[in-house]
Amino acid sequence: MEQKKYTYDQLLAFTVTVFEKIGCSVEDASVAAVNLLNADLRGIDSHGIARLSSYIRLWEAGRINAVAQPKIIHETPSTAVVDGDAGLGLVVAPFAMKAAITKAKSVGTGWVAVQNSNHFGIAGQYAMMALEHDMIGIATTNASAIVAPTHSKEKMLGTNPIAFAVPAGVEYPFIADFATTTASNGKLELLQRKNQSAPNGWVQDADGNPVTDAHILKRSGALLPLGSDIMGGSHKGFMLGSIVDILSGVLGGGNYGPWVPPLPAYLPLPEGMPGNGIGHFFGAMRIDAFGTSAEFKKNMDKWIARFRSAEPINTNQKVIIPGDPEREAEAFHKENGITLHPEVKEGLKSLAEKFSVFSDFF
Amino acid sequence: MEQKKYTYDQLLAFTVTVFEKIGCSVEDASVAAVNLLNADLRGIDSHGIARLSSYIRLWEAGRINAVAQPKIIHETPSTAVVDGDAGLGLVVAPFAMKAAITKAKSVGTGWVAVQNSNHFGIAGQYAMMALEHDMIGIATTNASAIVAPTHSKEKMLGTNPIAFAVPAGVEYPFIADFATTTASNGKLELLQRKNQSAPNGWVQDADGNPVTDAHILKRSGALLPLGSDIMGGSHKGFMLGSIVDILSGVLGGGNYGPWVPPLPAYLPLPEGMPGNGIGHFFGAMRIDAFGTSAEFKKNMDKWIARFRSAEPINTNQKVIIPGDPEREAEAFHKENGITLHPEVKEGLKSLAEKFSVFSDFF
Repeated sequence: MEQKKYTYDQLLAFTVTVFEKIGCSVEDASVAAVNLLNADLRGIDSHGIARLSSYIRLWEAGRINAVAQPKIIHETPSTAVVDGDAGLGLVVAPFAMKAAITKAKSVGTGWVAVQNSNHFGIAGQYAMMALEHDMIGIATTNASAIVAPTHSKEKMLGTNPIAFAVPAGVEYPFIADFATTTASNGKLELLQRKNQSAPNGWVQDADGNPVTDAHILKRSGALLPLGSDIMGGSHKGFMLGSIVDILSGVLGGGNYGPWVPPLPAYLPLPEGMPGNGIGHFFGAMRIDAFGTSAEFKKNMDKWIARFRSAEPINTNQKVIIPGDPEREAEAFHKENGITLHPEVKEGLKSLAEKFSVFSDFF
Repeated sequence: MEQKKYTYDQLLAFTVTVFEKIGCSVEDASVAAVNLLNADLRGIDSHGIARLSSYIRLWEAGRINAVAQPKIIHETPSTAVVDGDAGLGLVVAPFAMKAAITKAKSVGTGWVAVQNSNHFGIAGQYAMMALEHDMIGIATTNASAIVAPTHSKEKMLGTNPIAFAVPAGVEYPFIADFATTTASNGKLELLQRKNQSAPNGWVQDADGNPVTDAHILKRSGALLPLGSDIMGGSHKGFMLGSIVDILSGVLGGGNYGPWVPPLPAYLPLPEGMPGNGIGHFFGAMRIDAFGTSAEFKKNMDKWIARFRSAEPINTNQKVIIPGDPEREAEAFHKENGITLHPEVKEGLKSLAEKFSVFSDFF
């Protein structure tokens, strides 16, 4: 049986409506819906409309403020701290990234740390906001702890992604967006749904033994930092995740480490939280703050073309330039629509019923 | 037979003298020698006095300018580009990091890209320069290509390290400094000297097959990006190395990718180099540009203490806070002196003879 496909516009209209129903302004609902669905478009299903139900439950639990007014609470010419007012990360993040871009226009670079926010979807889209301004964009966030540092059986860090977008000239931009773990939680969830084992090096059990059980996180297991184990350099993955946690959480007054609030609304908030909500960090760097834009773009084109033509191990698999797979996924999904996992569809159907909208749509 | 140990002060005096002999000013010779020996102190022997002979050979080949005058050739309030005038990276790098710190004092953060430089020793020490100013410090550099991207048999990137130093209050600062490969070339060289195999996931052969031969780089093999292979997330290590290459090389007009000049003077320069020399990138962020210093330090103390007390897998191995091992190595070497590998000693003996200094010292 072929699965039903939804057009991007259909899912967008539904998501906007749901955000409006919880009280978001028309503008915020639209921004949030676009940013949520960018994940589905770019092929990172775990961070897209699949999370809409979780966000609504957080709103019901009073942990997300639908009428939040994010504001700058501290600044210098090149920096700012944004208080997200407990809003949707999908709304707070673009507010903060815009602030970073404004600072960069003025003094060359802009750096914004965010407190009191929530999950913001995929990091890459905020880094990409810099591109049209001929800037390099950077975005990171922390998240609730499901990753064990090297030598630890305790979960201390989120999957803490790093996104980095670089404009080019005739080539497509370079867009890296990756969790600082061997594999993202989304990839693990895919294996869970298919009841498949995880590859070596992705997870450990409650005692810190390497295992391949994709369901181990439900039994006090943990994801592993990029590098998997000490011989594979997992201490470097741990350092990367820590850097993201410090920039996103400690720097701007958000929570950090094991104190970052969980996504599922049924989980209690960590005790003794030292900061406010989830934290993010954004950067924007004008490329003409380091020379001429034309020269930079010429060199980025050369960089991209040269790496794309690196001699492949197998002639049928060239070196992948960061951003290529997601751009191709986006084109595919815009053309062919988006397929929803049955569980996700059930969740959206419940939302439609809850708010009496889009009846019989899912 | 116990190996002879040299005090830090002895090796420093020798290194200063050698740099003066090639024409460095007294001040530059001192800065360069301190920065070179910081690697030996902090236990990263591969990047310390072991490289002095290589630097001198580069000077003899006309590739290092001992009387370089690094200068800022482009700037905005928060950024600068430094032309290193083909000087020692050990002199150019602190000049550039100071410029970043000066910018940060003025507008909150400072970001400096460097072209026309040479190898600069360990990255961590430049990031650490920010600490005494209550700033977060960042330092990266590219280097000649010995790393194969995921899916490539061709060497396209250096080991491209990232250093990140964060001030704390009562705790020692957080200092991460790591190659974006599974293992650094220095660790591989240690195995070569001992004639031991490399662990799985460190290197591949000329055809891109995973191997354990620690000498494989001499036979057209390559180091692997952090993550080792596609299932281990090596595409993330490749993205990290690429980000460092873009910031260090492309942004400031240095060389990048396979065009970065090699360290050994007997190797020819790559053909068609698009930039000038080796590139670096430095950042400094005032912590009080994001709130109060006191609050930040209190939270960093809490972060460090909490991670240090994460429940260990084995009770005899706690979670390691980045910077701890290097700080302990530094204390040890200052107290107990520095042991030189016989090959390194031979090289230094030759230098002593060449310049008629420190006779019978090595």
